[in-house]
Amino acid sequence: MTSSRRPFNFSAGPATLPEPVLRQVAAEMLDWGGSGMSVMEMSHRGKEFGAIIERAESDLRELLAVPAEFRILFMQGGGLGENAIVPLNLGRGGKVDVAVTGAWSRKSAAEARRYADVQVAAEGFVPVGQWRLRDDAAYVHVCSNETIDGIEFHELPQLTHGVPLVIDCSSHLLSRPIDWRRVGLAFGGAQKNIGPAGLTLVFVRDELLGHALDICPSAFNYATVAAAQSMYNTPPTFAIYVAGLVFQWVQGFEYAGQRGLAAIERRNIDKAALLYAALDGSGFYENRVPAACRSRMNVPFFLKDETLNERFLAEARAHGLLQLKGHKSVGGMRASLYNAMPLEGVQALVSFLQDFEARHG
Amino acid sequence: MTSSRRPFNFSAGPATLPEPVLRQVAAEMLDWGGSGMSVMEMSHRGKEFGAIIERAESDLRELLAVPAEFRILFMQGGGLGENAIVPLNLGRGGKVDVAVTGAWSRKSAAEARRYADVQVAAEGFVPVGQWRLRDDAAYVHVCSNETIDGIEFHELPQLTHGVPLVIDCSSHLLSRPIDWRRVGLAFGGAQKNIGPAGLTLVFVRDELLGHALDICPSAFNYATVAAAQSMYNTPPTFAIYVAGLVFQWVQGFEYAGQRGLAAIERRNIDKAALLYAALDGSGFYENRVPAACRSRMNVPFFLKDETLNERFLAEARAHGLLQLKGHKSVGGMRASLYNAMPLEGVQALVSFLQDFEARHG
Repeated sequence: MTSSRRPFNFSAGPATLPEPVLRQVAAEMLDWGGSGMSVMEMSHRGKEFGAIIERAESDLRELLAVPAEFRILFMQGGGLGENAIVPLNLGRGGKVDVAVTGAWSRKSAAEARRYADVQVAAEGFVPVGQWRLRDDAAYVHVCSNETIDGIEFHELPQLTHGVPLVIDCSSHLLSRPIDWRRVGLAFGGAQKNIGPAGLTLVFVRDELLGHALDICPSAFNYATVAAAQSMYNTPPTFAIYVAGLVFQWVQGFEYAGQRGLAAIERRNIDKAALLYAALDGSGFYENRVPAACRSRMNVPFFLKDETLNERFLAEARAHGLLQLKGHKSVGGMRASLYNAMPLEGVQALVSFLQDFEARHG
Repeated sequence: MTSSRRPFNFSAGPATLPEPVLRQVAAEMLDWGGSGMSVMEMSHRGKEFGAIIERAESDLRELLAVPAEFRILFMQGGGLGENAIVPLNLGRGGKVDVAVTGAWSRKSAAEARRYADVQVAAEGFVPVGQWRLRDDAAYVHVCSNETIDGIEFHELPQLTHGVPLVIDCSSHLLSRPIDWRRVGLAFGGAQKNIGPAGLTLVFVRDELLGHALDICPSAFNYATVAAAQSMYNTPPTFAIYVAGLVFQWVQGFEYAGQRGLAAIERRNIDKAALLYAALDGSGFYENRVPAACRSRMNVPFFLKDETLNERFLAEARAHGLLQLKGHKSVGGMRASLYNAMPLEGVQALVSFLQDFEARHG
């Protein structure tokens, strides 16, 4: 089976993964590196898995240029888990300001209210200069890519009041560089650009560790997890292994004369531009997100005649274009263009959009 | 590569998995069931993964004869996570009694103190009639198989004071039937008998749902998870898929004229008997656990001459007998004999024990 024979999978997550990674995972399933074991079967404390997690962490640190003053933690619980785990660790039972730009940050604000005095800093995508911010807040929370709404911060807000910024970057993590100077803590579920669901990545400044509330479960206490090199609990070993292979794939990725994360970002820009241009150029489809905050990763769109939705999805599937149905809270369609989606996938989608319009428009 | 060529892996967890399951996982890695997707790439809300999780749950319910009044939850966080999640959900901020029979229940007691008034009901493996139990406790916690200490409850304690029993059964879950009449809640990490690390199984009586403390994170609130059919958070989809294949393997397993869980249990009894007899029949090795509570799953043992430990481990590895080193808190050796360990693996271990003794005894 050649690469071009796999359908293009636009799922918002869990999401498409690089085919070479899947092939390697399959090939090593019964015997990793001559160990006689599947990675699933290894003690997390053995030297084999130790080598896997160390390389994964160091490759990720290199790819994203994570400064030494940040710890990288491999955890469990996903974005919704972190909505509680962050205020349990960083909130100090005090004040937390949350910019509500969509469905995910709204959930984060609601969950943080269990543990902190939460203020909505902004409703909708407004400039940071207009946010309501408190100087004595423990942190400011932002969802830097809203998967459901298709909204992305192309530049992280620059806070000037000395309060740490927390970013939920689940759905664009590893799709572009991160300006760490602006960040206190970043977290993301793996199941978009990185690997299987069930792995959560946390990047946290050393200076923010050690202030967890007493009610914080030990397994979710960043200081405890950091002190144990992500081995306080048995970590999701297989997911970490797959993530590590994805990191290696990104390192070797080439596009438009570039390599690594720069190449990945360049292709993501091109993919998104291609799809938005097709949508904007049509009177048949529409994307309703302002250009200033359109996501490169998640592109929700609508057929102006929504009675055609089911036919659109069925025909798309028949053309090998999978999982285009929009989130149930938004309706319509959504195409997620994560790192592993090739340019050819977006070209095929655009061709299909035009063909479907020609037949039904 | 034939089945007999794989080394025997005695890891305490993550642990050996059935070879046919690993082969199927490898074969389906790029295309599950003609979907064109790896299971890792599927939306958890799509019909493909829906079919996977529904079958996994119904097969597990059938295998363990889980009564209708129990909910089965697929969660994250492992046993150490549950040490907090259980008191957050069931403790009601009141009293919790914990039988401390080893390292794991000791950790559970310590963690529960964050959320409840904890009393140690017993220190060591003493008959339930001698436990200090409070009539107004919210629940009684027991670790029904102590992985580190090699101690197992062959029969669950029968509580007569009307207080629910919680069992941490991580390391013998699915190795034997469970007497659900005695249980209020059971939990276990998957990484012993069931599948990859990062998946936690919870079986909870309906009547115990709905009493979580306000400080319980939504992602770990049993009622919330149950209401969402384990889809409140993105579940660890790939681990659930592998677990489902293991359930199918157990259903079809045959041994000594039996089939399914009964056959698995019969083989586990035979494997453990073989190894304990070899240890007890030798003056060179010893297992220090009283016969009444010896674990079928985890067999810690010592060489009486501990200066031979490194040589023992190196020679064992050369004989294809992996991961026999004991837990760092106990020392010595440990052989874990989970479901996927064939009888031939234990026979090979016993032969090696005798051969090593003949050469060094």
